[in-house]
Amino acid sequence: MMKALAPGSVIGILGGGQLGRMLALAGARLGFNIHIFDTVANGPAARVSARSWAAPWDDEGAVQTFAAKCDVLTFEFENIPAAALAAAESAAPVRPGRKSLELTQDRLIEKRFIRDAGCATVDFGEVNSLIELEDAVKILGCPAILKTRRFGYDGKGQAVIRENTDLADAWASIGKQPAILEAFAPFQRELSVVAARSQNGEMAIYPLAENTHSDGILKVSKAPAKLASETEKRAIEIARAIGEGLDHVGVFAVELFDVKGQFIVNEIAPRVHNTGHWTMDACACDQFEQHIRAVAGWPLGDTQPHSACEMTNLISDDVSPWRDLASETGACLHIYGKREARPGRKMGHINRLSPL
Amino acid sequence: MMKALAPGSVIGILGGGQLGRMLALAGARLGFNIHIFDTVANGPAARVSARSWAAPWDDEGAVQTFAAKCDVLTFEFENIPAAALAAAESAAPVRPGRKSLELTQDRLIEKRFIRDAGCATVDFGEVNSLIELEDAVKILGCPAILKTRRFGYDGKGQAVIRENTDLADAWASIGKQPAILEAFAPFQRELSVVAARSQNGEMAIYPLAENTHSDGILKVSKAPAKLASETEKRAIEIARAIGEGLDHVGVFAVELFDVKGQFIVNEIAPRVHNTGHWTMDACACDQFEQHIRAVAGWPLGDTQPHSACEMTNLISDDVSPWRDLASETGACLHIYGKREARPGRKMGHINRLSPL
Repeated sequence: MMKALAPGSVIGILGGGQLGRMLALAGARLGFNIHIFDTVANGPAARVSARSWAAPWDDEGAVQTFAAKCDVLTFEFENIPAAALAAAESAAPVRPGRKSLELTQDRLIEKRFIRDAGCATVDFGEVNSLIELEDAVKILGCPAILKTRRFGYDGKGQAVIRENTDLADAWASIGKQPAILEAFAPFQRELSVVAARSQNGEMAIYPLAENTHSDGILKVSKAPAKLASETEKRAIEIARAIGEGLDHVGVFAVELFDVKGQFIVNEIAPRVHNTGHWTMDACACDQFEQHIRAVAGWPLGDTQPHSACEMTNLISDDVSPWRDLASETGACLHIYGKREARPGRKMGHINRLSPL
Repeated sequence: MMKALAPGSVIGILGGGQLGRMLALAGARLGFNIHIFDTVANGPAARVSARSWAAPWDDEGAVQTFAAKCDVLTFEFENIPAAALAAAESAAPVRPGRKSLELTQDRLIEKRFIRDAGCATVDFGEVNSLIELEDAVKILGCPAILKTRRFGYDGKGQAVIRENTDLADAWASIGKQPAILEAFAPFQRELSVVAARSQNGEMAIYPLAENTHSDGILKVSKAPAKLASETEKRAIEIARAIGEGLDHVGVFAVELFDVKGQFIVNEIAPRVHNTGHWTMDACACDQFEQHIRAVAGWPLGDTQPHSACEMTNLISDDVSPWRDLASETGACLHIYGKREARPGRKMGHINRLSPL
């Protein structure tokens, strides 16, 4: 087992967007030096970090040079190409490990893993061709969702299949890539559990958040979500089973559909997660510090909130009235330092606190 | 009046220690790009900022080059040499302004300003020679404290005068510099009020902290301090009088001696202050964000704490048991990224939260 990294050690982060930025800020609070590897120069995370590298993922020499300066590596997103990951691993420990990435980068493998871990998923079928899509639609019925197996996020690489959908069009729209067809879940609400696991298997689990999406992008998380204690217990069991199954080190998130008090696992994110941003202002130790603690071999932090919180994403122009947002009492504004407010782009979030 | 600076603007900070670091982290949260000017390279603040300059204060060209890249400038400490300040002002607005510095850089001028603002101070006398010291001791009696007028902090540049003190030795020990002799205040406790003032004169005042020093260095701040409401009202009046008298923009702190419920003003810091570190984890908007808001022309933030807090400075080796400190429930650890734990050096602090 790794001994805890002392303050002053270097933590390298693969990826330099807002999650990398918030990880960097949390790492700095604990006295670490943060290095960033990103495909662009001077991104959101690089501008708050001690050093940064900009190179494409397929420049494995650059990844290795970067990694060689770090005491431990982590990442802000799960779609790290395999060769880049191998280059990183050759120079420094990567946490979470390869297993967490391999089991969550591919929707089909992920769904099978979730079932193997004893958790429910929606019905699904593998789709590698138009013919397989037609067969899967016959079995699962409509509506259903066709999703590429890899590299999808925020609703990208997806097509909804209805009775009148032209399947050839749908198949073409996702680029005819290896895919999965998922049945619709008749859920009452979407919840998520954000948890951390340390190298010795200790776990720290935050109260659940209730989430609202709009156009496939998270809009609002409210925490702690109101739950029957039995239901909350089941969510914790699910988080434990998944954390252990991944042999995970660091923070991860499990998205859950609440179907009449029964949980269906929708998706796993092997990293800090948008539905955990509420912890930044409502907990003594937020998800970003928690992740840094886990990857540095520190004791995990306290997950008990001191306040209730409603987190609202500021997407694209939502951030324009920053002056008004900053005037709200009891609200904490976070702006990510992105230069351009493109449509659908997450520019910041606001955490509105209230007494528990 | 300056219009509010949009996220993405550059805020320059003169000075790159822990206060600059915590200002930089707070500025980043609001989406600003932070530039640091420091006399050493890669100090605590530089390692969390978008750009940094390292040059001596008397390199006015470097100060000006730095300032020219910034939309607004601020500082982490009040002892900025006059020529450097002038160089900075020639290229960008500096907030707080010159008046706040000039009235607080010199203990004698500061004491006179405090009295002019209608607030009490201890009795004091000006000392420019051994003969003036002897005269002042006759008038004020013993014990008394001899302090250099300028460039003192954390108990440096001070000598306690008792009945048996050799005055020539004391005068030599502070370098025979222009000084002030201060009578001892028979205080029951030390308090401080941290406040912010915006450019349009709006003020935001945090609840008072009760402070304990050891060897002239702050050890513990507890907030909110327990006070009679009349007493608290008087502290707020003092903060308002001083903020307005300085025509201050940004955060400032007023150290108070509580003498049987009456306040004597000990010292003013025209900047974020160690006795305001408790706000980092107990308020929706902490003193660092508050200062950034004020200098950027943003609305001031909420000063109501959601939790009570006991802040303990980690001085020198106090930081060594960081692993144990990180294990405490409900505690928030802050480590400043200094490379060497020299005696008396502030290495970090811990905020222990409890319900209000």
